[in-house]
Amino acid sequence: RFKGRVALLFQPAEEDGAGGREMVNEGVMDRFAVDQVYGIHNAPNVPFGHFLTTPGALMASVDTAYVYLTGKGGHGATPHDCVDPIVALVGMISAIQTIIPRNIYALDEAVLSVTMVNSGTASNIIPEEAMFAATIRCFKPEVRALLKKRFHEIVEGHAAAYGVQARIDYDWGYPATINHADQAAFAVEVAAEIVGDTAVNGNSVREMGSEDFSYMLEARKGAYLFMGTGPGAGLHHAAYDFNDEAAPIGASFFARLVERAQPLA
Amino acid sequence: RFKGRVALLFQPAEEDGAGGREMVNEGVMDRFAVDQVYGIHNAPNVPFGHFLTTPGALMASVDTAYVYLTGKGGHGATPHDCVDPIVALVGMISAIQTIIPRNIYALDEAVLSVTMVNSGTASNIIPEEAMFAATIRCFKPEVRALLKKRFHEIVEGHAAAYGVQARIDYDWGYPATINHADQAAFAVEVAAEIVGDTAVNGNSVREMGSEDFSYMLEARKGAYLFMGTGPGAGLHHAAYDFNDEAAPIGASFFARLVERAQPLA
Repeated sequence: RFKGRVALLFQPAEEDGAGGREMVNEGVMDRFAVDQVYGIHNAPNVPFGHFLTTPGALMASVDTAYVYLTGKGGHGATPHDCVDPIVALVGMISAIQTIIPRNIYALDEAVLSVTMVNSGTASNIIPEEAMFAATIRCFKPEVRALLKKRFHEIVEGHAAAYGVQARIDYDWGYPATINHADQAAFAVEVAAEIVGDTAVNGNSVREMGSEDFSYMLEARKGAYLFMGTGPGAGLHHAAYDFNDEAAPIGASFFARLVERAQPLA
Repeated sequence: RFKGRVALLFQPAEEDGAGGREMVNEGVMDRFAVDQVYGIHNAPNVPFGHFLTTPGALMASVDTAYVYLTGKGGHGATPHDCVDPIVALVGMISAIQTIIPRNIYALDEAVLSVTMVNSGTASNIIPEEAMFAATIRCFKPEVRALLKKRFHEIVEGHAAAYGVQARIDYDWGYPATINHADQAAFAVEVAAEIVGDTAVNGNSVREMGSEDFSYMLEARKGAYLFMGTGPGAGLHHAAYDFNDEAAPIGASFFARLVERAQPLA
């Protein structure tokens, strides 16, 4: 019961492979003359059938940095003959903690977590190499660029200070998931038709997780929503089990969205 | 050509198993009525046949610390829900660098090298646990005790500060190798008889390596010497090859030592 065209985008590599980016880059929006895009993500432990979304930023951008340091290894008894990569790594990670509180405006949300450190094989050997990794998340492109700039300055400055070689692999990942305000408001209206006003929060808090539907929202106007599937193991948990009863609600939302956006009359 | 008794101690587990300690603990000195002990260690890249030793400290004590931290892991996007063990580790290792320059008297030689760091398995997960290891070397028992005390204070203080649990395995290892002055002077005289005055340095520099002959020198008076074996791959190097031509010189040294210490007449 609608007049017009609908494209159903079944996206591969949703979780980690940037399938959304690949589909956009390969022309899916032009090929099917897509005008607006909408998506739903299931949300365990949000009340069953409830919808959450917001105008503007819903999820964060995510970049990943891998830093590889090369010093000069040797005997643990003679550090003066070595260039110790662990002391350089410690200096870098310590200074990296200052980026969020000292360089980012307090109202601009961001997270930078160093999540891996690795160096050395024996208690009495000063290793030649050390590595660490970090995940870097925020909402605004200018904050994202500043985080990258300061990360490089701190690593490179400390590398010079300690005399180690540093290689930074800075993977520029998913952008922030930014809902378009009019489309988010429209999706909220539609959701309220399906599950009732009290089960829809159109001004939900954003979160620091990330999502490659972002690429579609960069290419076209649209909105992304979370839909509660009730109690159960969280996403990415080994015991996660999708609540099949939620599927008809999501399908009804999409069907009603199409009917409202492209009415017969 | 001597009057008296000689015990030849063939020691197992010389390199890493503290065989010297085991032999002393099992009573080898009493069993064979050992009065004094002497030992030689080969020294690649010291001129062939040269002897090096010193009264007092020749090699360092070596202790090894393993520190295991437990925080609270979680998603890299939500550090506020976690207790980050990597930031605690970084704080500890950074502060540990202050022990030698701030707590140890400048004339008391010591080395403390953090040689391993390990934490984390993925770029987007704040790990639950982190570990690091260090080698700790010096010459004086009171310095050794102070290094241990400050190491514990720094790790425990930072653990409290960051809210992580810390377990310290502090392996109390080989003591310093301390030559007895009279015995070292005697060994130098004997060595000079074998290879000539110019090939013996009785006031050699001590070094930060370590040696479990230390336990024998704690149990009895004696001296330890290095004997040059000429050019070649260093000790512990995969290409190391003992220079067999050095063996008669070492044997002559020991034979002459016995003759001089317990003459026929």
